[in-house]
Amino acid sequence: MDKTSPFAIHPALAELCAHLARMMDLRAAAALLEWDQETYMPAGATAVRAEQLGTLHRLAHEWFIAERTGELLEAAAASVRELPPEHLAVRLVEVVREDYDKARRVPPELVAALARTESEAREAWKQARQENHYAVFAPYLERLLALNREKAEALGYEKHPYDALLDQYEPGMTTEAVRVLFEQLRAELVPLVRALADQPQPEAAFLHRYVEPERQWALNRMVLEAIGFDLQRGRLDASVHPFSTGIAIADVRLTTRIDPHDFASGLFATLHEAGHGLYEQGIDPVLERTPLADGASLGLHESQSRLWENLIGRSRPFWEYFYPRLREYFPGVLDDVPLDAFYRAINRVQPSLIRVEADEVTYNLHILLRFELEVALIEGNLSVQDLPAAWDEGMQRYLGLRPETLREGVLQDIHWSQGAFGYFPTYTLGNLMSAQLWRAIEQTVPDVAAFMQQGDFRPILTWLRTQIHRHGRAWKAPVLLEQATGHPLDAEPWLTYIRKKYQALYPAASVSLS
Amino acid sequence: MDKTSPFAIHPALAELCAHLARMMDLRAAAALLEWDQETYMPAGATAVRAEQLGTLHRLAHEWFIAERTGELLEAAAASVRELPPEHLAVRLVEVVREDYDKARRVPPELVAALARTESEAREAWKQARQENHYAVFAPYLERLLALNREKAEALGYEKHPYDALLDQYEPGMTTEAVRVLFEQLRAELVPLVRALADQPQPEAAFLHRYVEPERQWALNRMVLEAIGFDLQRGRLDASVHPFSTGIAIADVRLTTRIDPHDFASGLFATLHEAGHGLYEQGIDPVLERTPLADGASLGLHESQSRLWENLIGRSRPFWEYFYPRLREYFPGVLDDVPLDAFYRAINRVQPSLIRVEADEVTYNLHILLRFELEVALIEGNLSVQDLPAAWDEGMQRYLGLRPETLREGVLQDIHWSQGAFGYFPTYTLGNLMSAQLWRAIEQTVPDVAAFMQQGDFRPILTWLRTQIHRHGRAWKAPVLLEQATGHPLDAEPWLTYIRKKYQALYPAASVSLS
Repeated sequence: MDKTSPFAIHPALAELCAHLARMMDLRAAAALLEWDQETYMPAGATAVRAEQLGTLHRLAHEWFIAERTGELLEAAAASVRELPPEHLAVRLVEVVREDYDKARRVPPELVAALARTESEAREAWKQARQENHYAVFAPYLERLLALNREKAEALGYEKHPYDALLDQYEPGMTTEAVRVLFEQLRAELVPLVRALADQPQPEAAFLHRYVEPERQWALNRMVLEAIGFDLQRGRLDASVHPFSTGIAIADVRLTTRIDPHDFASGLFATLHEAGHGLYEQGIDPVLERTPLADGASLGLHESQSRLWENLIGRSRPFWEYFYPRLREYFPGVLDDVPLDAFYRAINRVQPSLIRVEADEVTYNLHILLRFELEVALIEGNLSVQDLPAAWDEGMQRYLGLRPETLREGVLQDIHWSQGAFGYFPTYTLGNLMSAQLWRAIEQTVPDVAAFMQQGDFRPILTWLRTQIHRHGRAWKAPVLLEQATGHPLDAEPWLTYIRKKYQALYPAASVSLS
Repeated sequence: MDKTSPFAIHPALAELCAHLARMMDLRAAAALLEWDQETYMPAGATAVRAEQLGTLHRLAHEWFIAERTGELLEAAAASVRELPPEHLAVRLVEVVREDYDKARRVPPELVAALARTESEAREAWKQARQENHYAVFAPYLERLLALNREKAEALGYEKHPYDALLDQYEPGMTTEAVRVLFEQLRAELVPLVRALADQPQPEAAFLHRYVEPERQWALNRMVLEAIGFDLQRGRLDASVHPFSTGIAIADVRLTTRIDPHDFASGLFATLHEAGHGLYEQGIDPVLERTPLADGASLGLHESQSRLWENLIGRSRPFWEYFYPRLREYFPGVLDDVPLDAFYRAINRVQPSLIRVEADEVTYNLHILLRFELEVALIEGNLSVQDLPAAWDEGMQRYLGLRPETLREGVLQDIHWSQGAFGYFPTYTLGNLMSAQLWRAIEQTVPDVAAFMQQGDFRPILTWLRTQIHRHGRAWKAPVLLEQATGHPLDAEPWLTYIRKKYQALYPAASVSLS
């Protein structure tokens, strides 16, 4: 260990770090194997890759929950007792202690049963989707719910079993707090979406003009570098579903999907993943190979992706800089499309059935529905059998649409088949955080729009690095958010942002926007 | 475990396999991280990747040498006692028992000291090469030799400490046996090379005509598939130094180096690596995730690469099929070059300083020199200080050339800096085996040339799969070679092959070839 490391101050602490570094290396290897699986792995290796990944995850977990970790933790805790609470060594010990206690609360048999059932459920989900036949998936969902209720009991909670599940992805968040925020959103969004849907829609067919993949790759890479993503410490590749993954702080990989007839979809996927990637690249390098080298919560992670994708990437100042460049990269493609028309097209609001294709206004309604349903499922107030009808009814209520197949309805997302209950709300929490952070940025850098118009994203990235990125998991998301913005999580900044932006875009609908 | 697996016959055996599968998964992960490092890893991740790899190798090693492995081995050995000796379960127990005993003979402190010194030595080697300054590397070489002598003592040997080192790469081979074979080669090759060097050289400048990389990739992939490499269970990528690696039997990856001004070098590198890859892809799938899923020895592995690169890939029948296709893939490039001229050009013999660029005739002399020197170094009959002079003198004696820099002399290869003593001879042993196997193929498939002329490589591959590939490490190389060819390893088939081929290519030199 480097002598200048904040963890080199005591042998007991250094020993804990060396012990944890092994787990981090195993996780990094698993992350690389997963990245490879989606990018370059030959198709014939699917089965053996699943075994290899199973081993790596199991070894990392066993290594962490071993008695030895507890012993090293205790010695390390004693060694940092005199340090101020904000010292990274104190933070490390505290975070690892909490992780350790949580991980040990779940019995190994339950961990194994979950892993087994999730893997079977994923296959059943694929088949049910394919055959539009819910009964194929239902028994697995039933079992996953039972196992997750068991897990919630094992993890413990104060008020609601769903709290324990939520806490896995968004530490410190409660069902009640989510309900309050989501109710605020519901009350404004449902009428807003209805009002916007009644408006004449801007032209957008030009977004589907043919653009050679090579030109798209070049544009995507140029934009990535322009906003500050370091391609010396990261990559951009192709995959069916875009994602980002940190193999290390010095090795952050993004993927996107390039469609010759939909350049915008690929570019916004890249910006979204770049937001995640900038977060991971921005973590203080002294945290490399420690459990602090990660985002503070899924919601905060998502706030970064949404900030770059929407608040920045779908803003007018951003395109004032990039639109002329995009036209250079795609010669002749958009010569007849003025910036204003382009800006309107990429900000079209239109209720739709598929979450991942939703615009920034309707998106959260998809999440509100999923939250409502999964809480009811966990509570036992909604049966697995009644779920499809509840889904369809909810879609009608929130977005005025009715799915015709399970694939565009209740079976559209992979999350439940992976046993991820409590995950969906983090998407909306991330959206809310992104607007709250953006407001703080605008207050600190009042001429941020002018910087963007000149293609200078350094003031934004510097602020994010200082306030959020560098800390990794050293502090929890609510602490970071309040330190950075002066306020606890609040729906108002996001609602204000949406109101203002879409009043300008759809002036005729403004009556309904208050 | 699949119930039809030969290792599912007894719970004790299945338990041993499950235990070893974890080690194999760790090794597979390490192999993927190493592949990634040479292909797609961002440059900034070099340091952290070294740590990650260190952890994976260490964990795999610790897992294997643990007492638990010994206990499981004993139980498994008891469970297979009644089986015939050729049953795969018996082979597995025997091979793992031998691996285990060897691995446990080397003290963990020595393993650690070697790993540390190798990693320092590699850096020193790079620097010494760069600065043409031997003294930078010498002390590390000294230490590596001392540690390897220690390792040889720990491993044990009958006659010569070098036997123990050789045995790591070529199980069962001895210093004395190598000496006898190499002396035979020396006696014929030195005068042969001298005679060929005096001959007028065929035209070869056309091999350096510009060919677009994309066209080269297409040709390389077409050839790969034509000879039977399965791109559904493997890949071909670019790297600075071509290599092949098995992540699994179902996931075998090759790399090559595409130079727009040297298409032949890339293509022969691809054929070489394809030989390795076909071996790994041909291992019986029931051996997946077991320690038998590997080549029987480095020499036998090299025999496969040399067979496809030289005996097949530099043969006239091969090019009778592929040359018209190459001209289609590279339109206009070789229209003025008849097949015969092409065939002569790719078989030019010319003494040169760099081993990896040597032709198939001079290549073994490079190895003879290295073997001679490393035996003397291990024996202590040659000092590290005197090594560069001994190298230069040997090059003069074998090839009539004198290096002007260390980079084209004693520091050209990475092997010694990695502590790999006993490795070099396997290259030449592989060459000898390749010709011996080829003779057996010609005897079993008398019209093999006609098949090649029609682009049908199935008879060759089927023979290799049956005789060599499918067995993996179930039998040692000498056993497989003798089963396949009816003879123990012998230099005569290779010498006869070379004599015949180059007498035809250089008829004026034929007097010297007897």
